[in-house]
Amino acid sequence: MAAMPARRGEFERIARFFAPLADGFPGAFGLTDDAAVITPPPGRDLAVTTDTMVAGVHFIGDEAPGLIAAKLLRVNLSDLAAMGAVPLAYMLNMALPGDIDDDWLAAFAEGLAADQSAFDIALAGGDSVSTPGPLTLTATAIGSAETGRVLRRSGARDGDIVYVSGTIGDGALGLALLRGELGGLSDAQAHELIGRYRLPRPRVGLGVRLVGLASAAIDISDGLAADLAHILDISGTGAEIEAATVPLSAPAAEALRGDAGCMETILTGGDDYELLFTAAPGYAGRIAALASDLDLPLTPIGRITAGGGLTVTGADGEAMRLVRKGWTHG
Amino acid sequence: MAAMPARRGEFERIARFFAPLADGFPGAFGLTDDAAVITPPPGRDLAVTTDTMVAGVHFIGDEAPGLIAAKLLRVNLSDLAAMGAVPLAYMLNMALPGDIDDDWLAAFAEGLAADQSAFDIALAGGDSVSTPGPLTLTATAIGSAETGRVLRRSGARDGDIVYVSGTIGDGALGLALLRGELGGLSDAQAHELIGRYRLPRPRVGLGVRLVGLASAAIDISDGLAADLAHILDISGTGAEIEAATVPLSAPAAEALRGDAGCMETILTGGDDYELLFTAAPGYAGRIAALASDLDLPLTPIGRITAGGGLTVTGADGEAMRLVRKGWTHG
Repeated sequence: MAAMPARRGEFERIARFFAPLADGFPGAFGLTDDAAVITPPPGRDLAVTTDTMVAGVHFIGDEAPGLIAAKLLRVNLSDLAAMGAVPLAYMLNMALPGDIDDDWLAAFAEGLAADQSAFDIALAGGDSVSTPGPLTLTATAIGSAETGRVLRRSGARDGDIVYVSGTIGDGALGLALLRGELGGLSDAQAHELIGRYRLPRPRVGLGVRLVGLASAAIDISDGLAADLAHILDISGTGAEIEAATVPLSAPAAEALRGDAGCMETILTGGDDYELLFTAAPGYAGRIAALASDLDLPLTPIGRITAGGGLTVTGADGEAMRLVRKGWTHG
Repeated sequence: MAAMPARRGEFERIARFFAPLADGFPGAFGLTDDAAVITPPPGRDLAVTTDTMVAGVHFIGDEAPGLIAAKLLRVNLSDLAAMGAVPLAYMLNMALPGDIDDDWLAAFAEGLAADQSAFDIALAGGDSVSTPGPLTLTATAIGSAETGRVLRRSGARDGDIVYVSGTIGDGALGLALLRGELGGLSDAQAHELIGRYRLPRPRVGLGVRLVGLASAAIDISDGLAADLAHILDISGTGAEIEAATVPLSAPAAEALRGDAGCMETILTGGDDYELLFTAAPGYAGRIAALASDLDLPLTPIGRITAGGGLTVTGADGEAMRLVRKGWTHG
């Protein structure tokens, strides 16, 4: 029937570009069977997360294929990190427009291979179909987490300290640069911010170490304010944040010096893929030691309150309040 | 940032239409966390499979939303059945064009809910994004299978009997009817065949009962010939099939009486979602008893040979041979 030649092309492409990515994972059966078999290590559950990215919506489209591959994997790994899970394997679904050629697929698979090594994860299975629309990619990442001890969004308690890893706002400022909405930075500074937008650095090593320390955790993809609000909503708490304590990279600090309005982008822009977590004050010493051990800043930016929603004290000393459609000075 | 209104719309849609679908699955955390937690029952592994469907490519697009939902779930459940796995949960990814409205989503979710009940599976997580392209849906189904005893494609041995469940060719003939390529059937007959194309019946109950009986198994999605060829390739065997023994529904038999050329569609058309499996001849009695127990025909259609590729003896008594582009008389 009509579908056969397309399917045969799919088999050849799978064998050539993608079966090698499954070599390290016995349960993938070389991508030749109906399903993959995945066994959590003893005493561990599986954590499963999935993200879809559409060309022109979630990435610009002219990026190097390897960069698109890395972003697809990493946004999922960031979700696993936020659960305190260790990556095991992933499924890959590709809806490919007609202009995707073998060179593109080869470069895409090369990007996957590099990140598989970097994050110790293997391809377990997937699907490849043709589409008359834009390139549409889905990855479903599967990790393992200690039974009953995943990091949840729901555990924040009154008095807990709110922490973020790394620096905040770089990805959003990088996107603003790409859109021509931000200027006044050196080429090196712009390059650093754009790099943070294009290539997230999921905090996988941090997430697993936060099990037993953090009371709640989330990865920052929608923006610090929105993602903290997710924790507050589900935990039934409020929070007070000091904008001046939010850790910034050197280029982000420079951008903020040039335009104080950048603080809103930093707090609400998203694409950070850092972890935001809460912990009881008594863990401050252990968290400082963990930051030192991982060589990764873990910065307290405020505290959880019994209620009252999210209050942010702005760099100008005035209270900002999160309202339905975004941020306004309250 | 620009993404926020879309994201907020996503949260509302998830809460309204999809969170209820996750109610029965504690590890879904009400679709409010970064990942789902899935634990295989003691002594069982997880089997994971995924399929992507694009409007205009894998379905026509004007089907009832509930029918699209059912097909998406069922093609994945059919893969689990072919592994002998019991369905547990699924992840759902939706890339939605702008013309998908809440009525559509409500009907789609209703279709998912009905099949969740029918197949005892729950929504564990997912992602919903917007797309400028066609509706693109991915489901990733997760089942459990007895550790070390999944059904594989690789176990067919010389002398094994080749079986198929149910009837073959109905889906492909249904598609031919929809395309106006087949006539001469009554409305009731046409309706039955089109129904088989639109709504697969995954053989979940059969798959799990074949563990320990079948030496190899696959679900028939690419067509009986192509899917049997997958088993032969990976098992390193050949097979001899008698076309006249392939079980046909009454409408398919009628179509074949009207046009002998329909046999090629029946053997190569795909969309059957029946199971094709092999078993040692000594199991014939147990397989007949299983067919009776399930009230589902399990029909021997030929045997595995040591080599020689796939040979099919046609209804006209002449040998047909599988060549690169399809079937020809050899």
